[in-house]
This record gives sequence, C-alpha cells and structure tokens, in this order.
Amino acid sequence: MSAPRQSMGVASADRIVVRGHDLCRDLAGVVPFGDVVFLQIVGRLPSTPESTIGNAVLTCLMEHGMTAGALAARLTAAGSPEAVQAAVAAGVLGAGSVFLGALEDCAVLLGTLHDGHVRTKAPLPEIVRTWVRRTVCDGGRVPGLGHPIHRDQDPRTIRLFELATELGAAGDALHTITLLRDTVEEETGRSLPINADGACAAVLLDLGFPPQLLRCYAAVARAAGAAGHVAEEITRPTTPLLLSRIDELVPYEDPSPLFEEQR
Amino acid sequence: MSAPRQSMGVASADRIVVRGHDLCRDLAGVVPFGDVVFLQIVGRLPSTPESTIGNAVLTCLMEHGMTAGALAARLTAAGSPEAVQAAVAAGVLGAGSVFLGALEDCAVLLGTLHDGHVRTKAPLPEIVRTWVRRTVCDGGRVPGLGHPIHRDQDPRTIRLFELATELGAAGDALHTITLLRDTVEEETGRSLPINADGACAAVLLDLGFPPQLLRCYAAVARAAGAAGHVAEEITRPTTPLLLSRIDELVPYEDPSPLFEEQR
Amino acid sequence: MSAPRQSMGVASADRIVVRGHDLCRDLAGVVPFGDVVFLQIVGRLPSTPESTIGNAVLTCLMEHGMTAGALAARLTAAGSPEAVQAAVAAGVLGAGSVFLGALEDCAVLLGTLHDGHVRTKAPLPEIVRTWVRRTVCDGGRVPGLGHPIHRDQDPRTIRLFELATELGAAGDALHTITLLRDTVEEETGRSLPINADGACAAVLLDLGFPPQLLRCYAAVARAAGAAGHVAEEITRPTTPLLLSRIDELVPYEDPSPLFEEQR
Amino acid sequence: MSAPRQSMGVASADRIVVRGHDLCRDLAGVVPFGDVVFLQIVGRLPSTPESTIGNAVLTCLMEHGMTAGALAARLTAAGSPEAVQAAVAAGVLGAGSVFLGALEDCAVLLGTLHDGHVRTKAPLPEIVRTWVRRTVCDGGRVPGLGHPIHRDQDPRTIRLFELATELGAAGDALHTITLLRDTVEEETGRSLPINADGACAAVLLDLGFPPQLLRCYAAVARAAGAAGHVAEEITRPTTPLLLSRIDELVPYEDPSPLFEEQR
Repeated sequence: MSAPRQSMGVASADRIVVRGHDLCRDLAGVVPFGDVVFLQIVGRLPSTPESTIGNAVLTCLMEHGMTAGALAARLTAAGSPEAVQAAVAAGVLGAGSVFLGALEDCAVLLGTLHDGHVRTKAPLPEIVRTWVRRTVCDGGRVPGLGHPIHRDQDPRTIRLFELATELGAAGDALHTITLLRDTVEEETGRSLPINADGACAAVLLDLGFPPQLLRCYAAVARAAGAAGHVAEEITRPTTPLLLSRIDELVPYEDPSPLFEEQR
Repeated sequence: MSAPRQSMGVASADRIVVRGHDLCRDLAGVVPFGDVVFLQIVGRLPSTPESTIGNAVLTCLMEHGMTAGALAARLTAAGSPEAVQAAVAAGVLGAGSVFLGALEDCAVLLGTLHDGHVRTKAPLPEIVRTWVRRTVCDGGRVPGLGHPIHRDQDPRTIRLFELATELGAAGDALHTITLLRDTVEEETGRSLPINADGACAAVLLDLGFPPQLLRCYAAVARAAGAAGHVAEEITRPTTPLLLSRIDELVPYEDPSPLFEEQR
Repeated sequence: MSAPRQSMGVASADRIVVRGHDLCRDLAGVVPFGDVVFLQIVGRLPSTPESTIGNAVLTCLMEHGMTAGALAARLTAAGSPEAVQAAVAAGVLGAGSVFLGALEDCAVLLGTLHDGHVRTKAPLPEIVRTWVRRTVCDGGRVPGLGHPIHRDQDPRTIRLFELATELGAAGDALHTITLLRDTVEEETGRSLPINADGACAAVLLDLGFPPQLLRCYAAVARAAGAAGHVAEEITRPTTPLLLSRIDELVPYEDPSPLFEEQR
Repeated sequence: MSAPRQSMGVASADRIVVRGHDLCRDLAGVVPFGDVVFLQIVGRLPSTPESTIGNAVLTCLMEHGMTAGALAARLTAAGSPEAVQAAVAAGVLGAGSVFLGALEDCAVLLGTLHDGHVRTKAPLPEIVRTWVRRTVCDGGRVPGLGHPIHRDQDPRTIRLFELATELGAAGDALHTITLLRDTVEEETGRSLPINADGACAAVLLDLGFPPQLLRCYAAVARAAGAAGHVAEEITRPTTPLLLSRIDELVPYEDPSPLFEEQR
C-alpha cells in the first residue's frame, strides 16, 4: 500500500502551506477567517456568492441561546477552568444528531428525492408525495422541517433563502425542500417551517457541498458558539447557581432496576 | 441569590438575538463569520484594525499540518464516522497546554512584566532581565519563544507583527515580548524566535483581550483546523494505513510495573 | 410538567447514597468496583452469574492494543498533559460506531430476529435465513461477525460463551448469533467468526440488558483502556517519535477541491 | 531514535495479551474488573490490600449526585443519542482541576511536605506549619481539605482511612494529610474536613502510586459515573424539562463588551 496523502498543511522552517496556499503571505490578514474555514474544508477559496452564503450559514448555526451544548460547555468550564479546550470540546459534543444530524439527514433526503426524479423521470412532486405518504403519514419525522420555538417560520431560513436567491445560487435543493414542506402540509394538514438545518442543508447543497461535509462545516460554527459561552462562563459564572438548585430541579429517588435478573 | 444572566443569545418565535444583535437582519450575510466570532467572544463587533488582526490570528492558529490534535481528530473520525462532532471535539482536546497553554501563559507573563514595570517604576528592560535571570537561567522555558520547526523565525510572527504595526495596533505587549526575546539571547546566548503563540498573545493583548479569553478564541481556530482534517479523513482516509503499521512503529513488550507493592 | 427524577445519587452532610445504597457503609470496600459499575448502570447489584459475566465483558472490551482510540488518547495526552481527563475522553470518543456501534447494532439485530420468530411463529432458522439472503447476499455487513485479526475465531467469544454456558446463562441471543454465523457461512461460503462485539451483545442480552445500555456499559471499559494508555504515555511517551515521522508516513500534497463551484 | 515501546496490549489471531497477561485465559472471568483496571494502569495485578483499597477508591470517586460532569453528560446524551460515547466523554471532561486536579495537587503537596522533612531533617510538624503559615494564612486553598456539603467530615474519608488502617496500609501520606488538617485548624481556627480527593490521594500514595497516575485512575471512576447518568438519561430524560426552563433560570440580557477598543 502506497503512502496515503494529506492535503491540509505542512510547515518548513520559514514557510507554512495551508491547503496549497502560503499561510503568511496569502491568507493571514488577506483572506477573512470565514473564507479560510471554507478553504480548510473544501480545498479552495470560495467565490463571492459562496463566501456570502458560507459565512451566513456559519453565522446562523453558531448561537441559539442556552442550548444543551452551550450548557454542557459552561458546566465543563466550571469543572475545568484550566482546560478551556475541554469545555469548548464538550460544547461541540452536544451538537449531535438532534442538532447536526438533521443537517446531514436532510441533505441526504434532498439528494435522494432529486436522484429519484432524475433516474425514474417521474415528476419531482410525485416523487416527493410518494415519500411523504410512506414516511410522514406513518409518523416519521422529516429532517429539516419543524422547530419547537420557530413554529411558523424560522427567521434563519427566510434570510438564507433570500441571500441564495439574490445571489442566483438557489437551486434544486432549495426547490426540493420547499416542495417537501408544502407536500407535508397538503398530506397531513401540519404546517411546519423549514428549520435552520434544512435551510443550511439546502443552500450548501446548492453550492455543491457533498452531504458528508455539512456536519464538519457546522461543527466549526458550534465550536465558536461554545467558545463564547465558555468565555462568558469563566468571566461571569452561571452554573454555580444552577448546580446549587439541581437537587430541587431534579430530585433524587431510589432506583427501579432497568431490568430484572433472568429467572 | 438573584438569577445569573447570560448575554450570548436568546430565541423567540420570529427573532434570534445574538450578543445584542438581530441575527438574521444584522449579522447573517452582513457581517463576515470571522467578525461574528469576535462578537461572540468579546460581546461587540470589531473595529477595522481589530477585524484584520482578529481574523489573521484565527487564520494563523488554525492549521499546522499533521499535529497531535489533527491526527487525534482523524483517528476518532475513523472510529466514529457517524459522529463527526466527536472527531472535531477530539481535535480541539489535543490543543492543550503544550499548544494553547503557551498562549495564555505568555499573555500572563507579558502582563506581569508590564505590571511590574508600572508598579515599581523600574525600567522595563531591568524587570525583564531580572525575570530572565531568575527563570531561564535556571532552565525554565519561556512561553512564547522557541519552535521545533521555525528555529530562527516564525513566519506567522513576522506577518502578525507586520499587520499590527501597519494598523497602528502594536503596543506594550509586542514591545515587551520583543524585549524578552532579545534579553534571553543576551543572557543565554540562545537565539529563540517569538513563536505563533507568543505573537498571537502579544497582538491580542495589545487589542485589549484579557488573558483568560485567548484560549477560547484560539479553540475556535483549532476546531476549524480539526474540521478540515476530519472532512478529508472521511473522504480520503489516512489512518487505516497508519494503524496497519502501528505494531511495527510502536511494538509491544511486556510491562514493568509503574510501582511495586509497598513492603 | 412535574419535576423529573434522577436515581443515580445524592449527598448530604454525612451520607452519600448511590443507586439506593449507602456508599461508604455498603459499597466502598465491600462491593468490588466491577459490580459497582453494574449497579451504576443497571440500578441494582448483580447476582453471582451476572457479576462474573459482567466483569468478563468489561475486561474483554477494555484493551486491544494500539487501536485508533488508544492512539488518539495518547496524542491528546501529549498535547494536554495538564488535562489527563481530556486524553481519557479522547480515547472514549474514538470508540464509536466502528467499535461500539456494532455492539448495539448486533443486539438490535438479534432482538429483531428473535421477535420475528416469536411474532410470526416461523422457525428461527427460517427467519435468520431470510434476513441473511436479503442483507448479506446484497453485500451488507453483519454486525457481530468478522474481525480483521481474529479471522477464524475470536478468543474473547470462546471465553465469554464458555462462561455463559458454565453459569447456565446462555440463552436465546447466544443461540441466535450462532445460528446467524452458521447461516452466513452456508449462504455465502464465508466463514466469519463471532467477534467480541457480537459475543458481548449476546451474553449481555441473555442477562437481560436492553440494547441501548450496551454502549454505556462498554464505554466504561474503553475509558479504562484509554486511562492505561494515557498513564503509560505520560510516563514513557510514544507519540513524539510517531509525530516526528508523520510527514514521511503521510506526506503533504496540494489539494484537489472536494467540489467545484457550481456554474 | 529507536522504536518506542508500548506495554498495554497486542492481539494476534488466537491470542490477546493485556499487560503481559493472556486476556481470555487469565483475566476474563478470572480477575474482577476492578483489579483489571489496576493492572491496566499500574502494569501488575494488585495484592489483596491493594485490591480492596483500589476498588474502594474507584467506588468513592464514581458518583456524587448531579454534579457538573453528570449534568454535562446528560445534556450531551440529549443532543447525541446516537453517540453515547460522546456523552460519557463529556462527563469525563467535566472532571477537571476543580474535581480531579485536587487529587493530584494534594498528592504533590503531600509528597513535597514529606520530602522536605526527609531532606532537611526538620520535624514534619514544623515543615507543615511553615507551609500552612505561608500558604493558607495568605488566603490560599489547601488541596484535599474542605467540601461544600461535607462540612465537618467527609464520609468517604472516614471509610477509606478505616480500610487503610485495617489493612495495615496507612502510611506517611495519611499521616501527613491528617497533620495538615490539624495544623490548618490550629493556625486559622477553621475546621476543614479531609475531603475524598485528599483521602484518595493519601491512600493511593501510601500504596505507592506516583502522583501523575492518580488522575488517570480517577478518570475511570468518573467515566463509570457518567455512563450511569447517560444510561438513565436515555431511558428517563431529565434534561428536556431543565432546558425548557433555562431562560427563566438564566435569563438573557444584552452584553457589555468584555473589553473596549484600545484608543
């Protein structure tokens, strides 16, 4: 087996190359960090529309108040003030399937629906309706739709779709998720908004992102969000009071075993 | 005890506020992500020089080839392809004292030296020389100086100091660390470069960053670096080959106990 | 919504209760830690056969040489010697779907096959054969079978099945996975061993563990494994040499973008 | 540079060696897991007194109710139900300097005091009193003393010291920390208990543990604690209710910047 390659970066005595670019001459102080993140993940600098949308997506995914991940980061900062990186890592860890997974699941779904349309030549609305009837009417959730707080519209979706449209970057994925949302409403009577995960998935897919890269991209946003919460927590703690009330908020009671001995 | 506050963000049905700003109206697609990161950690948008330097610092700290953290992230991606956030988190975890700690330790040192000068009215070169004689000549390391690869100069330092100077943002910290470097050379004969941690600490201190925020800021850069490595690893794996050779690279031998039974 | 309860533990001035037991009077120095782990996860102390098998499972899953998780833990210890918990955490993070997920996927599969047999009254061999023909003959992997090193037999499986049989604890799951292995061989000609994940899943299911608890249980074993590697790494480092050779093992080359700009 | 070695484990087709022992023949189903953990970290099996104390220490450190780490683990499980290992890892991450660091700091302190006594031949009470006057009377905390809940006595300390004494394993460290506690009371009037970190540090030091291994050992206990909380959370969630109240418990207010622009 020949040596595997990496194309991220390499350093010599007087030069650091990052994704094929001279870090100090061509990136630092020249390319804004949001575009450097795009470069780091994608392997090339973004075009202007890609930059606007890419930066907007990261901005939309970064912060949403005291989420599970933000709180986990703060609690870890309380226990490990000497290891700030542990607290930021804890904040990233909380961004799993419930939050980030919808991003990729939605992207995969949009791709599947679009591919089905291309492959079978059946009209896309028909492909979508078949899927909705099979999945949603059976009680399945739709990744990319619905939000416990933004019940009618997710403001991040409005903004991202507005940007994509202005920049001429709205494509098949944006079209498909909109159709999906409308079809769910027609078939079930439930009017669910396209949430931020769905909107980010759609606009990034329309830029050409492969589905498996979306969670990498989003994790950077979550890290930034967590870093802010950690910075605030070590400056102005919130968790000591929360922890002092925890036995009242979640009282202890003796356990029932999760299963009994067999026989 | 009154309720502790948080000033990161809050969401209502049709509005998301992040650090006092309307996310969708004023940030997404308006403010580049690098400046949004500054806002998230500091609590206000950066001025133009702060933006240039802040983005440059994040860019400099993001990627340095196959580091311990990058490799840890890749290995975790190999074992947890379904949990990309775990792999990015692992990459952030590797950025501890050996890499990020120097950032804060250096900032604390620069602050201590400067404070000693202000408090005692002794000239700064004298304060620095006393510290160097006490610490370095006793074999202690100097946080912010030295690098195993960039033995004479760290190109990131050259670039960051150039930017700070051009923007009129070079201040006491940059001056102090340069003096520190020169004094170490005079006292020990060793010519060590100011490394990226030292340069980032100095330029961020001169912007006004409190030392304890530097690691939060840097952790975002490390997360971006890790996310890139993870994205590449799930696309084009490197770790299977490495793991297939690990018994040859690090062979097993039976252990000697780390301590013997007492008595 | 009434207050949710927790049944893990609570502390007062002179007493600590863990899972309904007085920690200092009834557990510490009385119940071996392996059984305390069972208590912590299950909510009751194990019977004698449960203790033997439970401890054996943890022992089998703890250590398997320089795995991806072990190496990630060591690399993190190198970068964060002040944060040992970060290194142990990194070792746990590497134990994802490729290693731990098979445990749960296998348990779910065994349960599905058994349930199908009970529900339809079709003979179990028939249920299994149908599944194998549909899944494996289409190229799908079977969670719980196969191992890159233990190609014919996994010694951990032999030992665990021997223990379960001796203790009269072998049940439906052990029977089903054996049938599964034999059926795969009959249908495909491939003789795959039942691996440690499959064996642990089977014996724990036969003790009555619900599938979703298996990964919690196994994570403790992985943490112990990682802790050992971290202890050794901080005593006798291996990663500096590995990292000094990394550019030779995984050389850098300029990137090809992961996707091109659309249009 | 010759190849570094590892003494943790290695696997061949039909045999797995862990710390010099045949895993399947000599460990699994033979040696209880608590003793296997000792073997994994120390490199040899424990003697009987070492086993009793080692298992008791792990048991004492495992669970203490809804701590910051337990809550962080639960919150992560809520966001990443598919990645249980991420939740357990988050629980380990929260066990930093505030909880685990005291263990090592205390061990280092006890060693320093004892070494000072041996080196200078000054009586140990004198060494201790000098340190207390210099450190504690200046407002410094003493690692190993004090607890917010167990204000007079920590029941875990009583139990561990009782075990060590019964087994003839009480030694210099136990003696020194007791002297330290008494001296703090004499010098400051404050009666602080020896807490669990101090007690675990003392009894493990008296077994011969080097200070830097204590946190590795304790991290296993924290992982077990976290695994239990995660198992319960995925079975009977507590965090949704907590998160539904978070804006009331920790309300949002617009930020004050953490620092102002310079000049």
